Amino acid sequence: MTRYGAMYGPDVTFLGVPECDLEDDAALRAAEIVIVGAPFDGGTSYRAGARFGPGAIRQACYLAHDGSRPSLAMRVDGLRDLRVVDAGDVEMFGGDIERSLAALRAAIARVAHAGAVPVVLGGDHSITWSDVTGVADHRGRGRVAVVHFDAHADTGDIEFGSLYGHGQPMRRLIESGAVRGDRFFQLGLRGYWPGPETLAWMAQQRMRSYEMTEIGSRGMGACLDEVAATVSDCAGVFLSVDVDVVDPGMAPGTGTPEPGGLTARELLDAVRWVARELPVVGVDVVEVSPPYDSADVTSLLANRVVLEVLSALARRRLDGTGDRWEPATPLLDGRCG
Amino acid sequence: MTRYGAMYGPDVTFLGVPECDLEDDAALRAAEIVIVGAPFDGGTSYRAGARFGPGAIRQACYLAHDGSRPSLAMRVDGLRDLRVVDAGDVEMFGGDIERSLAALRAAIARVAHAGAVPVVLGGDHSITWSDVTGVADHRGRGRVAVVHFDAHADTGDIEFGSLYGHGQPMRRLIESGAVRGDRFFQLGLRGYWPGPETLAWMAQQRMRSYEMTEIGSRGMGACLDEVAATVSDCAGVFLSVDVDVVDPGMAPGTGTPEPGGLTARELLDAVRWVARELPVVGVDVVEVSPPYDSADVTSLLANRVVLEVLSALARRRLDGTGDRWEPATPLLDGRCG
Amino acid sequence: MTRYGAMYGPDVTFLGVPECDLEDDAALRAAEIVIVGAPFDGGTSYRAGARFGPGAIRQACYLAHDGSRPSLAMRVDGLRDLRVVDAGDVEMFGGDIERSLAALRAAIARVAHAGAVPVVLGGDHSITWSDVTGVADHRGRGRVAVVHFDAHADTGDIEFGSLYGHGQPMRRLIESGAVRGDRFFQLGLRGYWPGPETLAWMAQQRMRSYEMTEIGSRGMGACLDEVAATVSDCAGVFLSVDVDVVDPGMAPGTGTPEPGGLTARELLDAVRWVARELPVVGVDVVEVSPPYDSADVTSLLANRVVLEVLSALARRRLDGTGDRWEPATPLLDGRCG
Amino acid sequence: MTRYGAMYGPDVTFLGVPECDLEDDAALRAAEIVIVGAPFDGGTSYRAGARFGPGAIRQACYLAHDGSRPSLAMRVDGLRDLRVVDAGDVEMFGGDIERSLAALRAAIARVAHAGAVPVVLGGDHSITWSDVTGVADHRGRGRVAVVHFDAHADTGDIEFGSLYGHGQPMRRLIESGAVRGDRFFQLGLRGYWPGPETLAWMAQQRMRSYEMTEIGSRGMGACLDEVAATVSDCAGVFLSVDVDVVDPGMAPGTGTPEPGGLTARELLDAVRWVARELPVVGVDVVEVSPPYDSADVTSLLANRVVLEVLSALARRRLDGTGDRWEPATPLLDGRCG
Amino acid sequence: MTRYGAMYGPDVTFLGVPECDLEDDAALRAAEIVIVGAPFDGGTSYRAGARFGPGAIRQACYLAHDGSRPSLAMRVDGLRDLRVVDAGDVEMFGGDIERSLAALRAAIARVAHAGAVPVVLGGDHSITWSDVTGVADHRGRGRVAVVHFDAHADTGDIEFGSLYGHGQPMRRLIESGAVRGDRFFQLGLRGYWPGPETLAWMAQQRMRSYEMTEIGSRGMGACLDEVAATVSDCAGVFLSVDVDVVDPGMAPGTGTPEPGGLTARELLDAVRWVARELPVVGVDVVEVSPPYDSADVTSLLANRVVLEVLSALARRRLDGTGDRWEPATPLLDGRCG
Amino acid sequence: MTRYGAMYGPDVTFLGVPECDLEDDAALRAAEIVIVGAPFDGGTSYRAGARFGPGAIRQACYLAHDGSRPSLAMRVDGLRDLRVVDAGDVEMFGGDIERSLAALRAAIARVAHAGAVPVVLGGDHSITWSDVTGVADHRGRGRVAVVHFDAHADTGDIEFGSLYGHGQPMRRLIESGAVRGDRFFQLGLRGYWPGPETLAWMAQQRMRSYEMTEIGSRGMGACLDEVAATVSDCAGVFLSVDVDVVDPGMAPGTGTPEPGGLTARELLDAVRWVARELPVVGVDVVEVSPPYDSADVTSLLANRVVLEVLSALARRRLDGTGDRWEPATPLLDGRCG
Repeated sequence: MTRYGAMYGPDVTFLGVPECDLEDDAALRAAEIVIVGAPFDGGTSYRAGARFGPGAIRQACYLAHDGSRPSLAMRVDGLRDLRVVDAGDVEMFGGDIERSLAALRAAIARVAHAGAVPVVLGGDHSITWSDVTGVADHRGRGRVAVVHFDAHADTGDIEFGSLYGHGQPMRRLIESGAVRGDRFFQLGLRGYWPGPETLAWMAQQRMRSYEMTEIGSRGMGACLDEVAATVSDCAGVFLSVDVDVVDPGMAPGTGTPEPGGLTARELLDAVRWVARELPVVGVDVVEVSPPYDSADVTSLLANRVVLEVLSALARRRLDGTGDRWEPATPLLDGRCG
Repeated sequence: MTRYGAMYGPDVTFLGVPECDLEDDAALRAAEIVIVGAPFDGGTSYRAGARFGPGAIRQACYLAHDGSRPSLAMRVDGLRDLRVVDAGDVEMFGGDIERSLAALRAAIARVAHAGAVPVVLGGDHSITWSDVTGVADHRGRGRVAVVHFDAHADTGDIEFGSLYGHGQPMRRLIESGAVRGDRFFQLGLRGYWPGPETLAWMAQQRMRSYEMTEIGSRGMGACLDEVAATVSDCAGVFLSVDVDVVDPGMAPGTGTPEPGGLTARELLDAVRWVARELPVVGVDVVEVSPPYDSADVTSLLANRVVLEVLSALARRRLDGTGDRWEPATPLLDGRCG
Repeated sequence: MTRYGAMYGPDVTFLGVPECDLEDDAALRAAEIVIVGAPFDGGTSYRAGARFGPGAIRQACYLAHDGSRPSLAMRVDGLRDLRVVDAGDVEMFGGDIERSLAALRAAIARVAHAGAVPVVLGGDHSITWSDVTGVADHRGRGRVAVVHFDAHADTGDIEFGSLYGHGQPMRRLIESGAVRGDRFFQLGLRGYWPGPETLAWMAQQRMRSYEMTEIGSRGMGACLDEVAATVSDCAGVFLSVDVDVVDPGMAPGTGTPEPGGLTARELLDAVRWVARELPVVGVDVVEVSPPYDSADVTSLLANRVVLEVLSALARRRLDGTGDRWEPATPLLDGRCG
Repeated sequence: MTRYGAMYGPDVTFLGVPECDLEDDAALRAAEIVIVGAPFDGGTSYRAGARFGPGAIRQACYLAHDGSRPSLAMRVDGLRDLRVVDAGDVEMFGGDIERSLAALRAAIARVAHAGAVPVVLGGDHSITWSDVTGVADHRGRGRVAVVHFDAHADTGDIEFGSLYGHGQPMRRLIESGAVRGDRFFQLGLRGYWPGPETLAWMAQQRMRSYEMTEIGSRGMGACLDEVAATVSDCAGVFLSVDVDVVDPGMAPGTGTPEPGGLTARELLDAVRWVARELPVVGVDVVEVSPPYDSADVTSLLANRVVLEVLSALARRRLDGTGDRWEPATPLLDGRCG
Repeated sequence: MTRYGAMYGPDVTFLGVPECDLEDDAALRAAEIVIVGAPFDGGTSYRAGARFGPGAIRQACYLAHDGSRPSLAMRVDGLRDLRVVDAGDVEMFGGDIERSLAALRAAIARVAHAGAVPVVLGGDHSITWSDVTGVADHRGRGRVAVVHFDAHADTGDIEFGSLYGHGQPMRRLIESGAVRGDRFFQLGLRGYWPGPETLAWMAQQRMRSYEMTEIGSRGMGACLDEVAATVSDCAGVFLSVDVDVVDPGMAPGTGTPEPGGLTARELLDAVRWVARELPVVGVDVVEVSPPYDSADVTSLLANRVVLEVLSALARRRLDGTGDRWEPATPLLDGRCG
Repeated sequence: MTRYGAMYGPDVTFLGVPECDLEDDAALRAAEIVIVGAPFDGGTSYRAGARFGPGAIRQACYLAHDGSRPSLAMRVDGLRDLRVVDAGDVEMFGGDIERSLAALRAAIARVAHAGAVPVVLGGDHSITWSDVTGVADHRGRGRVAVVHFDAHADTGDIEFGSLYGHGQPMRRLIESGAVRGDRFFQLGLRGYWPGPETLAWMAQQRMRSYEMTEIGSRGMGACLDEVAATVSDCAGVFLSVDVDVVDPGMAPGTGTPEPGGLTARELLDAVRWVARELPVVGVDVVEVSPPYDSADVTSLLANRVVLEVLSALARRRLDGTGDRWEPATPLLDGRCG
């Protein structure tokens, strides 16, 4: 398997965690979390730039890139308490979406087969077809639920003559049987797409999509509780976070910005909850487009989404030992000493 | 009547809706909504740039410019379910505010007389004098209420030797008798202007102005309910949205940014409510200044404010048939099929 | 004492308030509020630029720079109802942190000794060591409480071989005895710094630090009430506002941006509360870094933080006369006439 | 043939020239110049964004978009003296380079067969394979010369597993026989690519490439004279202008910026000369990437490159009638009256 | 006469030179150079923002704002060797061009009558009507020559129903008799405006306009020598510098950018030559539009154009004493000691 | 010796060349060129940000970061034909200039003693004191000449109470005896600093400084020939390139921008000439300030300055074998095959 390596900037790892070669199965098996870059924006219908997402997300932090990030809130170090490695970028030529997505799927399947949780840094959202399929290749088709934060449903059919693109991955996942429609949960949808025909198809698949007015009326907590109630019999949950679920006023660096989204804080709270409460087996964070960003705020947010998920995974394990953390716990209680 | 046409960029319509000639009364009468651009920033006291607002608001969208926008939340197509046309820009030379505002007032009056709802894309807020007066010319002076979202009261008196400017339109409207002071509702005010003398004048007019600390304490919903209780006997409501009602951290592309505003989500929720619950007869969206914007997020927001209003107007009609939509309705309930 | 004067741009005062010479004790004694600029970013560990903070904060306003700002919400003029002067910038060479901090401390002590409240415009957060120490030099060591809004605890020990820097001032303040640990309140902390060792030290000092998940769970109001209950026996409160307590999506112009912060509105509400309810004897607003800002939104916010504090101080005095303002008061009630 | 139409913004024509349907052969035959947009950046190896090039180049002008541009220097109106139409954008999905380039080639061939000169607005440089091949399909393979302004030779072989991409079109053109190597002229090359192997291949093809140090030493005029001497027996010249031939300090909005280029003035002078002195039968202007631009200066430059070429083509015709223009002619000589 | 004073930012002087009150004739008579700000962009046809030009030009410098600038090249201090004062900004409301231009004309005439050279900081180019007329009011109508660096001729007739605007001042000056057409010299014109009719009018007036291709062919020096030969019998020369004469790739912060201009170096060389060789009696520097600038490079350039002119005026006086400076003089020759 | 390593971003090498440990003398001795980062801006008097210079210069390139860069012009690979390694960044705390400069001097001396040529990536210009002194520590005090491209002389005396800062290094070098004044050559000076007193000191030292008007009159070639004639008896030449020698319109990302500079092309031509014709024993490239840059054009230019120097050094060796390259050589002559 070829890697882009030093294309699109220097070949660095996520905040300095150790490197890992995707060809080296022993190394993969030794890891719990494998970060994989998918520097691809050939599937975008509007603003490109997400090819620089993996590099930007890996670097966006003001602290030393030393492979350690102790969570102030949760009192775990998501990069050290788990065995986190970075396998670099899969080579994905923007002009050839089919070959690129196939290469990514193979890479993710390899990680999943090794027993590790892949954390994929996009790239545009078309990569989720590969990310989830690669995990399902190992966990079993139809057995993994998807929790999907996004402004857009991404359930379009053929566009521009292609089955693949960043508006279509969720349809492909369901049509291919990789994911069952009733195990697909979308949070944060809004705006003016898709139209009735696609919505009808989604309803037929028994997807559950939470539009922002519903979330606003009922509260994110109530919505997430519903999700949790349903996924209990799944072989795991794939968490897919499109950074455009956040309002473009706070996260401008993305390709298809739709006003009226979550605040950054609301997203961090939500992904922390998902990763602590649900059995996450794969993650992707997509649609960060650095050329449209301002002072790197969107890359920073995506970096923190990854860290919040990893911290919550570490915390979930610790919680399992009985040492359960609660959000209202004062920072400097007895645990510090 | 002259039009700017291709000045300030190409002569395009709002997201591709059909063109309409302001001189063609038959065409105006066939329309329900007429979009009019007011590319004017000659009334600004600080940052200019709003002359590019109409062009930017028309173009700010990542979807095809095909004259259709099905609202995901409300299940209507605000551009197709209503007969929406775009009459282009009124010629408004920045250096001659009096003639410019007169030309705009004439254009709006023509639209109103034809029975259509004008939706004016500003331009700085001085245009609201023309927008509301033009509607009042048809609906009756003093009979139309104004619901005004803004960081600023815009009730200043003569400034720089001129009666007209973007800090004065609301005073002119009341002084001229176009609008009664007790039918003027302002939401989102904050900051350090105007001073006591002007506030005293406003109180004398029996205006009702909701400052952000009041909205924060009581909730936007309670404030809007108060407004609704009062406007029931009006001949209609003019909705004027100054994009600076949103916090400049989320909507930087505006001329007189005042920190501490609404989130984009809060504004969209509020205008949706207004357009569904109150009898809107005219709309303007003003003070988008593209040169100060970042990745077009402010233009996008203004575009969505327009779409949210149009969708809500379409929904209001459908609600009237008994098919009432509620914000908490799940997206994929029975209606999709 | 030397001043930078016209370095880093023209020598202007905060929104046009009168100048004051730090050498002129009579002038200082005649003032109630003395604004001091600390154009220093030699203590930053990542992005510099805060040296331009004082100039940017002084100028960021669309209204005339006329030394008057009537608060729309609170009905006081923070710049006129109090005797506010601006003493310009202390000369602080970025390459020599020890001498720079000493010069600033001397300047602040002089202001405090004259009986005025210093309002220091940073500059990076290392200046808080000088700001609070200067006040404590006058009010009594260990007698002043600190209310500290920030994403970061700033309690690091020696870094890069130096005791001083923008990650360490709070430790230095406590270690030096200027402030007692149990009179130190931090609000808005989050992210991935510091680690357990530093937290243990903080707990030992009996500091009280509110991380964002606690604030999110319990509400800012509840947290501030706790603070208020504790500071009642202090000789005064120093309010230190690091603009990075706000989410970088809304306030990008800062040096160490950490996603997941307050909204601008939440910060303004909180500082207004603090300055009205607690006996503020000193203020600093720090870490505004103009080169990373977008359309000056962060400088504007910092300017409004200063104005909100000054307005609340003026209001506190008026409240004390029995004319108490409440946030839910309608803007145009009887007081306007 | 499908068109993108309103994708990537509104469907506008170059500065307001008339529209033309690529399917309408009669309309094509009536035209002399047919502008075609190629909104494609799927072939880029680094920064994308050139998909927005066609829209940006069409709109970048401060004058009314009225289909007229009288050249101050040459006293012709390139948009009116020639019959110029705009056929809109060819649908080119970024993720499928092969199908996209084939669609473009067909479109260009259709224009060429109708007897018009295609002027293609890129898009990344991979489109030149289609542009020149489409012209050669009509004029005869190997019979058209190419004059190529660029920082890069674009003669790479297979990259990322694909024959096609923006670093390879010139090799493909020669290998396919569309263009003879000794009829290929490159001006402005510089930097650190390609390596010796590719240069050896280029030398074998008898290409003539002018690196910037040679141009600096000998002068652009001398180099162009050499080119002119060689192309006299060709069936025409295709002019391909990569905007990165200009120094990125003056034209930052491009994907692979290489310092040390021409000034904007030098490029305008050079393309004017080429279009007046050589028999141009096709043109493309490529690699404008708006997301990296500053105040649209690169889009403006590309717009002026197109206008300068069209003006020079109009002038060449007039020169042919004996009314020859010289650069040193004073602007206001007898011709004005 | 009213002044804007603290509008559009703080009320500062050009690099710290002394203030001067326009109402104080004694102060004006004591000055040799009077800087006047004209913060007006109501005459712009495209991008506004030039209202912030005066403030930006006054502040754009990295050195202390201390009213001294020793020219490294010419060995004079343009701010100290001449008696330079700054009279602040004339109040010019953007929405009322006629009143604004009249107020500016009166201010300039007052300066001229006092015997000082006005240096006007624009503002858009419509102000030149006032600037030159004000000088001619004193020096004699038709007696002052104009040397005009610009990309545009600015000789348009009525536009948007107004005689005044930034595309028309030069016509108004000639039509009003303030300047004779044969004493009007334009350098740097280019692009696609105006058309034949206006050029014919210009030729009739016997204006002399150097388009960039003529300047490129003959050299700026030869063109300027021609100018010098003609102005010898005038009562003085007004130097009007539109910053858009420089290529927008190097000076993006302007309203109507036209590619193909001078380099910044070429402009500085040219204005130095004019101010040393010709009898300058008035100056304006216009069309700096800060919102479109990048890192303030255009404001910096305009600041340096002013300094270069003032330095050259000081040098011209010294040259007159026989101590003539030559550009080729080594910097550290005997004069330094 | 401590290193910053992963501070200010990931720990990467210049375009992927091998790493080298400054502590490892054997490794240093095996190298010919040692790149050292000096991430320091504590010496700046105006805009900071140069601390991010080393990271930005290392990464600014669109080609794969593979440690190879074949020069198209000179037919050598500056990174491979020479043994180039990167020793990372020296730890330089911005707030402590004396300790920081001492640490850098020690690092450079170590490189020089090992027989390698240090290439230092700044950082502000205060580092040149360390860079040249470190080389002189090995080559002999007073024996190394300095060729210094800059807009500023950097020969100031004590500023802000410190001997060290970015306006003073050249004075310190001469006063300390590290460099003889008559072996100091400055090219590109301009603007309004320093004043007569400092110039007199410079003349006393017999420095040779070429201001831009002299360079413009005589040509850069003539000036460089003069330099070459003088340095023949030196132990080597240190080349110090301040990126602000280029016009800020083309290189905005710098701290003290002075209009009227070289073009990027002129700088590349000049440094190529110096490195081919003179015996270079040390290099620094300073004052790149990424936060003020636009699309990375200034970082790109600095990256190319380094590559041009390394390529020229490689070419100089090859030239020495008799295979001399000339700038006018066509690119594809016999050597390619």
